Amino acid sequence: MLETKSVIYLDHAATSWPKPPRVGEAMLEILNGPAANAGRGNHGMALQAGRVLYHTRVKLAKLFGILNPNDIAFTSNATSALNLAIKGYLKPGDHVVATSVEHNSVRRPLEFLKRTMGIEVDYAEVDRQGQLDLRQVKKLFRPHTRLLVCSHSSNLLGCILPIHELSRMAHENGAMILVDAAQTVGCYPVNVQEMGIDLLAFPGHKGLLGPQGTGGLYIHPDIDLEPLLHGGTGSQSEESEQPHVRPDRYEAGTVNTPGIAGLGAGVDTVLERGVERIHRHEWELTQYLMKELHTVPGVRLIGPQVGQPRTGIVSFTIEGRDASEVAFTLDREYGIAVRAGYHCTPLGHQTAGTIQGGAVRASVGYLTTEAELQTFMNAIIQMIK
Amino acid sequence: MLETKSVIYLDHAATSWPKPPRVGEAMLEILNGPAANAGRGNHGMALQAGRVLYHTRVKLAKLFGILNPNDIAFTSNATSALNLAIKGYLKPGDHVVATSVEHNSVRRPLEFLKRTMGIEVDYAEVDRQGQLDLRQVKKLFRPHTRLLVCSHSSNLLGCILPIHELSRMAHENGAMILVDAAQTVGCYPVNVQEMGIDLLAFPGHKGLLGPQGTGGLYIHPDIDLEPLLHGGTGSQSEESEQPHVRPDRYEAGTVNTPGIAGLGAGVDTVLERGVERIHRHEWELTQYLMKELHTVPGVRLIGPQVGQPRTGIVSFTIEGRDASEVAFTLDREYGIAVRAGYHCTPLGHQTAGTIQGGAVRASVGYLTTEAELQTFMNAIIQMIK
Repeated sequence: MLETKSVIYLDHAATSWPKPPRVGEAMLEILNGPAANAGRGNHGMALQAGRVLYHTRVKLAKLFGILNPNDIAFTSNATSALNLAIKGYLKPGDHVVATSVEHNSVRRPLEFLKRTMGIEVDYAEVDRQGQLDLRQVKKLFRPHTRLLVCSHSSNLLGCILPIHELSRMAHENGAMILVDAAQTVGCYPVNVQEMGIDLLAFPGHKGLLGPQGTGGLYIHPDIDLEPLLHGGTGSQSEESEQPHVRPDRYEAGTVNTPGIAGLGAGVDTVLERGVERIHRHEWELTQYLMKELHTVPGVRLIGPQVGQPRTGIVSFTIEGRDASEVAFTLDREYGIAVRAGYHCTPLGHQTAGTIQGGAVRASVGYLTTEAELQTFMNAIIQMIK
Repeated sequence: MLETKSVIYLDHAATSWPKPPRVGEAMLEILNGPAANAGRGNHGMALQAGRVLYHTRVKLAKLFGILNPNDIAFTSNATSALNLAIKGYLKPGDHVVATSVEHNSVRRPLEFLKRTMGIEVDYAEVDRQGQLDLRQVKKLFRPHTRLLVCSHSSNLLGCILPIHELSRMAHENGAMILVDAAQTVGCYPVNVQEMGIDLLAFPGHKGLLGPQGTGGLYIHPDIDLEPLLHGGTGSQSEESEQPHVRPDRYEAGTVNTPGIAGLGAGVDTVLERGVERIHRHEWELTQYLMKELHTVPGVRLIGPQVGQPRTGIVSFTIEGRDASEVAFTLDREYGIAVRAGYHCTPLGHQTAGTIQGGAVRASVGYLTTEAELQTFMNAIIQMIK
């Protein structure tokens, strides 16, 4: 058995916890119930597995304003979705605009294609408060710019980037927009039609409350990507090329059926509670936390100021204290889980001015309470005495 | 709730069912217990997740005779593992030897690289009984052959290919060997050291009794692959390149922690029962089934003859009967799940002479009983009357 101890969990930006009980129940129902391998065979158990995948696709389509659920391809995480989008879309000689708060799951695939395929990348500067100067972004577009890649919200600063304006700008310049929605899905509104999103990469295990091992990519019907995985799809098996039918084209191999069932259950909770309400709750908690942290000598907050839009992330440094040591002490002495270090976004830390030493990140979820944040604040105050 | 009805499940080559109860229990324990995101943060919950991954790696290393568990990279299925191996290893101008029983998860990545990178591929002919003429294979090697790719067992014929001899041949010719062990892991002995395997791709949800959404690739320590996924690893975050440390290099993004916990529990069952014993049980069942099928007029069996080595797969055609219709009737009227069609291996069907119409495949598992096969035989006999 795992050791269970009382814990205040403030690392929702890494993965949400606890999951709604229905998530695990849905996983076990499909794992132990009469369900086999979707799309492989026509027996009832294979069809049952196929139905589970379809139901989750329908729920996600509803959540994100997607017309055809089959335009969603399941992937094992947001990183896989971003790799599929970036490597499947770009061609040698293409130019890409990204931002200075991108996660390594965007930066590293782009740098890989720079090295191997000769693509070019410009990173638009986000300032320390998480503001993007749209006039500066506009200047980065070139005739051969084919893609704008953009985090919807930085996993370090918590700032929200203006996707509406960026998608319009991309389209006016003949480019497509890929949005990394790792920090927004389930806790901040995302609508691909209203926001003009061509490619939307998302994890299943953060705001959508599903299990680790799930995620997906929405692919606009007019875009054809080269698949990241080539292999069996249970369809058009006689062809040596990957079939064009969606979602099969992008889902070679056995899909994570229990995980996708769990993701569907997580999305049910999100739909029932409402994204707007979840966001408001989380925003209010961040405001409380920021105001409290502001009163502590030596604390420097990162990202948007009090009162400004943000997701449930509050990152900060404490003068003279190592971020990793702060997180370690919070965990060991107070049973509080936060994350320190680089958060897989050295770009974000350069932007925030915290590339030396990193920062402490506290991130809230839909069940986090103000009382938990009070306990967190008491711990911080005690620590720095 | 899913509809539950009594079912005889003979589609273990697609996915094993039912899973040992401990598999789902292990998944829920990690999903709902105090475990978060492995490698992301140093708080106790992240470390707990990391331990789960490591324990499963250790069990797999024990099962496959792998010296260093960190030479195993987790993937979302065998297809992802094969894509990582094939695309990460081959370079423009390389020549590859494969066989005529490969699954589309091998064939389609190879054909993709033929089209985009100019690699060359020769498929060594396996005969209708599943025999590979090693002298013919030897003739296919050329000075620029860098890889031999080979199914350990065909997912249609059930034949077992001579990996010892093939790895020796590959090495004598300066090539590496990649083994697709989708049909053997957990139910036929696999030992990378004894068999001289350089790259071993395996699914977690077949013979290893884990959940869908799991799999892995063993990578010999001397081989460096270009990762299939570039992104965050929680290590060396400040680098724009993927880190070299294993397994991080090949596991960008959040790993399917609940799935890997379930896989570990499945491997526990395999280790306790013993692969040799599981294999002997399945082999005896196939012998029984083949002898019974031989007595039915119009039935033509595919693959190795009675008495010969094989895995738990028995494929056949019935004269004048469409394979899909046979499978459909077995499911709807008798509650028996088998798989018809092409099984994602048109190459295998060409080899077997069943490319017109496909075949019916019955595949057994470690819990399948002779009584279930008797029921299956009664259904077949009744159907063709």
